[in-house]
Amino acid sequence: MNFTNFDHISFNPLLPEVKKVMIDAITNDYHNPSSMHKAGEHASELMENAREAVARLINADTPKEIVFTSGGTESVNHAIKGTVLANQEKGDHVVTSNIEHNAVIRSLKRLKSSGLKVTSLPVDDHGRVRPEDVANAITDKTIMVSIMHSNNETGTLQPIEEIGKITKDKKVLFHCDAVDSTGVVPVDVQALHVDMLSFASNTFYGPTGVGGLYVRRGTRVFPLLDGGVQENNKRAGTENLIGIIGMGTAAELAEKDMNSRYDHLKKLKDSFIKELPNYIDEYIINTDLDNSLPHVVNVSIKYIEGESVVLMLDDDDFAVSTKSACATGSLRASHVLLSLGLSHADAQGTLVIAFGLENTQEDVIRFLNSLKMVVTTLRNMSPLYKNK
Amino acid sequence: MNFTNFDHISFNPLLPEVKKVMIDAITNDYHNPSSMHKAGEHASELMENAREAVARLINADTPKEIVFTSGGTESVNHAIKGTVLANQEKGDHVVTSNIEHNAVIRSLKRLKSSGLKVTSLPVDDHGRVRPEDVANAITDKTIMVSIMHSNNETGTLQPIEEIGKITKDKKVLFHCDAVDSTGVVPVDVQALHVDMLSFASNTFYGPTGVGGLYVRRGTRVFPLLDGGVQENNKRAGTENLIGIIGMGTAAELAEKDMNSRYDHLKKLKDSFIKELPNYIDEYIINTDLDNSLPHVVNVSIKYIEGESVVLMLDDDDFAVSTKSACATGSLRASHVLLSLGLSHADAQGTLVIAFGLENTQEDVIRFLNSLKMVVTTLRNMSPLYKNK
Repeated sequence: MNFTNFDHISFNPLLPEVKKVMIDAITNDYHNPSSMHKAGEHASELMENAREAVARLINADTPKEIVFTSGGTESVNHAIKGTVLANQEKGDHVVTSNIEHNAVIRSLKRLKSSGLKVTSLPVDDHGRVRPEDVANAITDKTIMVSIMHSNNETGTLQPIEEIGKITKDKKVLFHCDAVDSTGVVPVDVQALHVDMLSFASNTFYGPTGVGGLYVRRGTRVFPLLDGGVQENNKRAGTENLIGIIGMGTAAELAEKDMNSRYDHLKKLKDSFIKELPNYIDEYIINTDLDNSLPHVVNVSIKYIEGESVVLMLDDDDFAVSTKSACATGSLRASHVLLSLGLSHADAQGTLVIAFGLENTQEDVIRFLNSLKMVVTTLRNMSPLYKNK
Repeated sequence: MNFTNFDHISFNPLLPEVKKVMIDAITNDYHNPSSMHKAGEHASELMENAREAVARLINADTPKEIVFTSGGTESVNHAIKGTVLANQEKGDHVVTSNIEHNAVIRSLKRLKSSGLKVTSLPVDDHGRVRPEDVANAITDKTIMVSIMHSNNETGTLQPIEEIGKITKDKKVLFHCDAVDSTGVVPVDVQALHVDMLSFASNTFYGPTGVGGLYVRRGTRVFPLLDGGVQENNKRAGTENLIGIIGMGTAAELAEKDMNSRYDHLKKLKDSFIKELPNYIDEYIINTDLDNSLPHVVNVSIKYIEGESVVLMLDDDDFAVSTKSACATGSLRASHVLLSLGLSHADAQGTLVIAFGLENTQEDVIRFLNSLKMVVTTLRNMSPLYKNK
């Protein structure tokens, strides 16, 4: 399919090296890593190599702190539900923010019906959680703080290191949803002082449906999947070895190429932002450009609907998202944008543009031309625009 | 790696057709099925084709009743935890059996700490749950019955249809762990009267780390993974599309080739059982040969340790299991065999032999020769054998 993907929050293509190791794994039919015989041992070795690569990427003390999961959502559910259930004698309170991913929000909501109390913090004008708010929200009943590393709609980075210092000082467990930033920007579990960190392979151009949860040694958390003794008894179930092998290779490459990738993506985004006023007017940039992922920019275009823009751009073979892909199917305004203070009307006209490694400067200019046409067409049909 | 796999409960190699569609999926880099644009729609179409194939395999009313998961363990955890939590106002009691997989046992154990009451039924001399025991165990507080379709250590089939009639009659939800039988023998959710059914792709020669949960329309069950709206709001998280596509093709082939596969596997097992007394003596067959999967036989060989047999057979390039692969790492005697009335000593000498599509009659005879050597060697070293 010939299209230009500017929707790299939803999907990143597999790197050629990742494709190769996955195809090799399929061709060679590696056994079940848990089996006792030689074939199982060989599979286990390949799995542990992947675990080491992932551990290095986030600077874990030991690969044993990495639990492989079926993706970011499972990691987040595991961290939140497992920690709350395992620490009930310690307290009944969790601190989070208003801009978390639905995996966090809905995991906490599920636990609220069993008596969990949740403090959800607002963000400042830049879309960032204030560390002092976290400090003030923590009580002697607080089990855990869960704040995301970067927002999945705006790309805005959160002050995780400062928050980590506070939780460490107050001896409260800290989970960080780093699903959209691990492998894109440096994510160092030591520097961030996190106890748990969720990540997903596709963010760094590995396969979808694979991810991991970092659990600092000694952290008390129950498994989400009970059963066999896989993953050091932390996550039962026969592993998705083909996916894990792909993630391992993707993690190695992400570590090696992080700086050059960053520069490439940042240039695309910078040129988009610089050129944008030459193509359209009356828009709001919702991303904190001083503190954000290199590849993501969130723009609310006034007087139009994001859904229509996405569909019309699709006709021009550009893939963009109107908000988090995980929210597709819901037509409600994004809770993230409302938290930023946007009106419902402005929030409806929002595009999440996420550049990728395979995009070029030429793609950006082609896209801006297409966007201009689409916006002009839609505004010409919009009563809001005509009557403004 | 050149070895003969008689451990097809732990691992089945991918079928050539499955490899092909998975490699195609990797090569073509299908997008995120949840995305709004054309590329997402194409991915979504492929995913729905797979869902239809799986629905047909188990005779679901509609593909919407299929939830894709990361495998049998997730399916079981989802069914058990999701049903108990969603039906708390109905009761606090679950009926299960003593021979369930650890995914069932440990999911229930997790819930016991929150007040769930569990009745775990014994099995008869053949290793089968008695339907009348299920009927007698159900009270007005019973939310759910969870009984496996076939046991993962013995291959013995359970009287699911009879149990399903009872649960339907008594209006109690029925979950069936059919992880080791779906795709091997006919599993028809209508004939079995089940409300939920767990299955795994690798059982029918699809990839590991992918599976599904059948949820009959109208069944009240909470998601295990909260977050996005994927899988009709029943299971959040970006899907493992490559794995799902592989499972879809594997399901199609399993349906088409079920009879010929059955005959092939049954012949291997029959000849193994017929020839076995010509090679070794003093063993117990723990499988109910009249009611079992065509490919599995569980044999306890007296006076020796299963672990040693597995390792020595491994030197001869045969892969077998000494019990459920998921229990590796634990040296305790199998709860399944103890439930069958075996002594600890006899249970220790147990092999689970599970034939596969690629095995031949010649493999069986080579294996028997190897087994005879191994058993003779080990018994010659065994004080138990010398002093018997």
